Amino acid sequence: MTRLPVPVPLRWADLDAYGHVNNVAMLRLLEEARIAAFWRHPEEQDEPWPTAVLDGGPGAATHTFVASTEIEYLLALGYHREPVTVEMWLGHLGGASIDVCYQLTTGAGSERLVYVQARTTLVLVDAASGRPRRITPEERAVWLPYLEVPVAMRRRPS
Amino acid sequence: MTRLPVPVPLRWADLDAYGHVNNVAMLRLLEEARIAAFWRHPEEQDEPWPTAVLDGGPGAATHTFVASTEIEYLLALGYHREPVTVEMWLGHLGGASIDVCYQLTTGAGSERLVYVQARTTLVLVDAASGRPRRITPEERAVWLPYLEVPVAMRRRPS
Amino acid sequence: MTRLPVPVPLRWADLDAYGHVNNVAMLRLLEEARIAAFWRHPEEQDEPWPTAVLDGGPGAATHTFVASTEIEYLLALGYHREPVTVEMWLGHLGGASIDVCYQLTTGAGSERLVYVQARTTLVLVDAASGRPRRITPEERAVWLPYLEVPVAMRRRPS
Amino acid sequence: MTRLPVPVPLRWADLDAYGHVNNVAMLRLLEEARIAAFWRHPEEQDEPWPTAVLDGGPGAATHTFVASTEIEYLLALGYHREPVTVEMWLGHLGGASIDVCYQLTTGAGSERLVYVQARTTLVLVDAASGRPRRITPEERAVWLPYLEVPVAMRRRPS
Repeated sequence: MTRLPVPVPLRWADLDAYGHVNNVAMLRLLEEARIAAFWRHPEEQDEPWPTAVLDGGPGAATHTFVASTEIEYLLALGYHREPVTVEMWLGHLGGASIDVCYQLTTGAGSERLVYVQARTTLVLVDAASGRPRRITPEERAVWLPYLEVPVAMRRRPS
Repeated sequence: MTRLPVPVPLRWADLDAYGHVNNVAMLRLLEEARIAAFWRHPEEQDEPWPTAVLDGGPGAATHTFVASTEIEYLLALGYHREPVTVEMWLGHLGGASIDVCYQLTTGAGSERLVYVQARTTLVLVDAASGRPRRITPEERAVWLPYLEVPVAMRRRPS
Repeated sequence: MTRLPVPVPLRWADLDAYGHVNNVAMLRLLEEARIAAFWRHPEEQDEPWPTAVLDGGPGAATHTFVASTEIEYLLALGYHREPVTVEMWLGHLGGASIDVCYQLTTGAGSERLVYVQARTTLVLVDAASGRPRRITPEERAVWLPYLEVPVAMRRRPS
Repeated sequence: MTRLPVPVPLRWADLDAYGHVNNVAMLRLLEEARIAAFWRHPEEQDEPWPTAVLDGGPGAATHTFVASTEIEYLLALGYHREPVTVEMWLGHLGGASIDVCYQLTTGAGSERLVYVQARTTLVLVDAASGRPRRITPEERAVWLPYLEVPVAMRRRPS
C-alpha cells in the first residue's frame, strides 16, 4: 500500500462557530494537499513528491478540472498546531481522468485517527483546445505505484 | 415537483485563476443557500422560507452536522452580477437525518442551465448530549412537501 | 456630496465564532464593492456604475494593485439577510493612483449606522511593462464627480 | 530589537488571478501569525511563544477585538512552498489596548525581503461586561520585552 502522506497545516480561520474545522474548509485542505502532490511548481528545483508532474497555474498547457467530489466526515477536527496528514492515492487511472482518494488523519499506528475520507475525479484538459487530453505514458508511469483500491465510502444503508 | 429556489449572489473572490467559480467555492454557495433555507434567524421576524425551522448558531439547542457531501461539476461558471439560483429539495427524510439535494442554475425554461448538482446528508444533534436527536413532527410537516426523488448523479461508468 | 452606494450581501461564512463579521472578511466586503463599482465586466452590456471603466481580470491591459489599506472597526456587525451598503468615494485622484474611501453602513437618515470606515490606495499598472501608468483624461472625467474630502480616521490619540 | 518570528505557510488558495497572494489574504496571514503568538490554546501543554497568554475562542473570559488595521504592500508575493516569516512586535502598550506591528518577510541577512508591513490595534474586552478591561501586570510583563518603535509606514507624500 503506497500512499502520499502530505502534511497540511491548519489555520484558525478554518474553524467555524462550533470550534471545529468547517466542512467546506475540509475540502480546501484536501485541495491544498492535492496541489502540493500533483502540481509541478516552476519556481522550485526539487519537488518533494514524485507525482508532481502537472503544470500548475493558468498559463499551463494542461488544465485540471474537478469533475466530482464525494466526501465523508467521520470525526470532528479541532485546532491542531501540528499539521494534519492528508494521505493520498489513486483509486482509478483512466484515459483522461484520475480519481484521487484521501484520508485526513492524525497520529500513527494504534493512535491513527481518520477525520475525513474523500474522492475527487480530475479530468486533464488541453488548454489550447479545451478538450480532455489523454494521460501520457510518463504521467502513467509515475502515478501507477499509487494506484490502489478506492476509498471505501460508508454511505448510509438505504 | 416542489423546490426551494434560493438566489445566491456570487463574489469576485469566488473565482480562481481560470476565471471560473472555484470548485470549493461552489460548495460554499450551496452552504449559503442551505443556511438561508433551513435556519431560523432570531433577529428576523419573518423568514422567507417555510422550511427555516432550525435554530442557527452555536448557542442553539440543535446542531446540524454535515455527514457527507457528493457534488458533480457539469458546467464552468463565470462571473454573473445577477445571483445564481440554488434549487433545493429533500432526497431523503430519515429518523435523525435529511438529504438536501441541490442544482445550481441560471435562466429558466429552455434557457435553464445546471452548473452543479449535489447532495448533502445532515444529521440533527442535540447540543446538550452531543447525540443525534429525532426529527420532530413539526419539522417533518414543514419539510415533507419538499421530499422528492434524489438528485440523479451521473457518475462515471466503470 | 456624491457617493457610490453599493449594496453588498453578507454570507454566513463571513461570521466568526463571536457571531460577528470577521475583521478580515470586512475587507473582503469592501473589495467586492470596489470591484463592482470600478471594474468593467466584458460579459455585461450595461454597467450599473458610471465609474466602472477599468478592465477586470488578468488578461486586461491595466492591472490595479492595492498599495495600502487603512481600516477602522467602529461597530460589530451581526448577520443581516438584507445587503449592507458600502458607500464609496475618492479621497485622492493622483497621477497614477487613487484613494478609494469607504463607509460600510446600514439604514438611512437618523437610523444610518457606520460599522467600518476605510481607505485603499490603488495604483494603475500597465500590464505589459509592469510599471505604473497615468490615469487617462477619460478615467479622470468619470471619477472626478466622486472626489471628496477623504474619510476622517479617528486614530487613537497618542 | 526583539521580534517574534512566526512561520506561516502559504496556500494556493491565497493566490489571486495574477498569481500573487491576494491583498485580503495577506491580512489573513498576519491574523494567523498573531493568533499563534498571542493566544493560549488549552489543548496544548507548551506554547512556543512566551507571549501566548490570551485565551482564544468564544468561551474565553477576555475577547480581543480588532479596532483598526493599517497595511502597506511593498512587494508582490508569489507561491512559496516554504513558510514565510511574519515578524511581530508591539508598537504600543496602552491601558486596555496594544498595537501589534508586522513585517512579512522571506530570507535573512542581505537576502531578507519585506513584502508587507502592517499595524493592528487590539482592544481587550471583558467577555461578561462587554467593556474594555485593563491589561494585567502579568500580561504587561511578558509583552514588555517586545515593545519597540512602531513600524514606519511609508504613506504617500501629500
